[in-house]
Amino acid sequence: MNFRVRAATKEDCKEISRMIMELAVYEKMSEQVEISHKELERDGFCQNPFFECLVAEVPEEHKSKEGCTVVGYALYFYTYSTWRGRSVFLEDLYVMPEFRGNGIGKGLLCKVAEVGRKKDCVRLQLSVLDWNTPSRDFYAAKGAQDLTVSEGWHFIRFDGQNLENLANEAPKDL
Amino acid sequence: MNFRVRAATKEDCKEISRMIMELAVYEKMSEQVEISHKELERDGFCQNPFFECLVAEVPEEHKSKEGCTVVGYALYFYTYSTWRGRSVFLEDLYVMPEFRGNGIGKGLLCKVAEVGRKKDCVRLQLSVLDWNTPSRDFYAAKGAQDLTVSEGWHFIRFDGQNLENLANEAPKDL
Repeated sequence: MNFRVRAATKEDCKEISRMIMELAVYEKMSEQVEISHKELERDGFCQNPFFECLVAEVPEEHKSKEGCTVVGYALYFYTYSTWRGRSVFLEDLYVMPEFRGNGIGKGLLCKVAEVGRKKDCVRLQLSVLDWNTPSRDFYAAKGAQDLTVSEGWHFIRFDGQNLENLANEAPKDL
Repeated sequence: MNFRVRAATKEDCKEISRMIMELAVYEKMSEQVEISHKELERDGFCQNPFFECLVAEVPEEHKSKEGCTVVGYALYFYTYSTWRGRSVFLEDLYVMPEFRGNGIGKGLLCKVAEVGRKKDCVRLQLSVLDWNTPSRDFYAAKGAQDLTVSEGWHFIRFDGQNLENLANEAPKDL
């Protein structure tokens, strides 16, 4: 199947928002989704955007049964390793189920790698859930290391009241 | 002990670079450190910086035995959750051993939380090594969740030749 990978525009945010929800349903965490296309438009298309996004598009004649031609996305941003320097972090990679097996996921992943390399990023990182064997296999087959397994890195998060509490205790001399 | 937390300047990069190496030695991965103050100056103090950094400073009369007054740092950047929106990621938090137990680590952490909250970040995230019990306990005591334990998130990385291979296979139609 023909498809095209291109940089997302502000006008794609409704479709991206739809697919974010589809991915969260697959990850069994849809109750955690609290943002809509409005926040995506504001945060991704401002002066110093918080993220960048690619979309995969199929020709009109291959549109989904609901009429979608934007059938996948990769959302990423730049991070920094104090050991190695510039990195790119792939927050989400998604292809609609009926379009899988056509190389679209790989096309999106490779494009993020290329975009990162152009910015001199030396790493492409992401996170996956341990039960998500298809995704873990997909990345492992392309040479990725699982750093949680090999080096023992854990993800830690503050949010809600815990984050408020920290912020409220900040020294006042900055 | 008195200390002050302030935004790092370009002139602090040599001291930050020294502490990055001290932290890597503690984490038993010093052979992985490949960047110096020059990369920090370039990547943290440009138009769209890849990171921001705070430093903790003690008065001259409390300087370390080597003569250092910059005795800790917190290096962070902004990331994005497609479920919740803006987040801040704390890449490194370090206080020199002889200055620990004075609230400097907590002061740096809280200041990052405050900086993040001012940018409407709803999460503060970081990663720790599983054997690093002092750090894990420090964050847990302040209410952080370990998402690797509770939800099963793993860190995945492409680098070196694997990253090159991906980039070389990117679709050419962007």
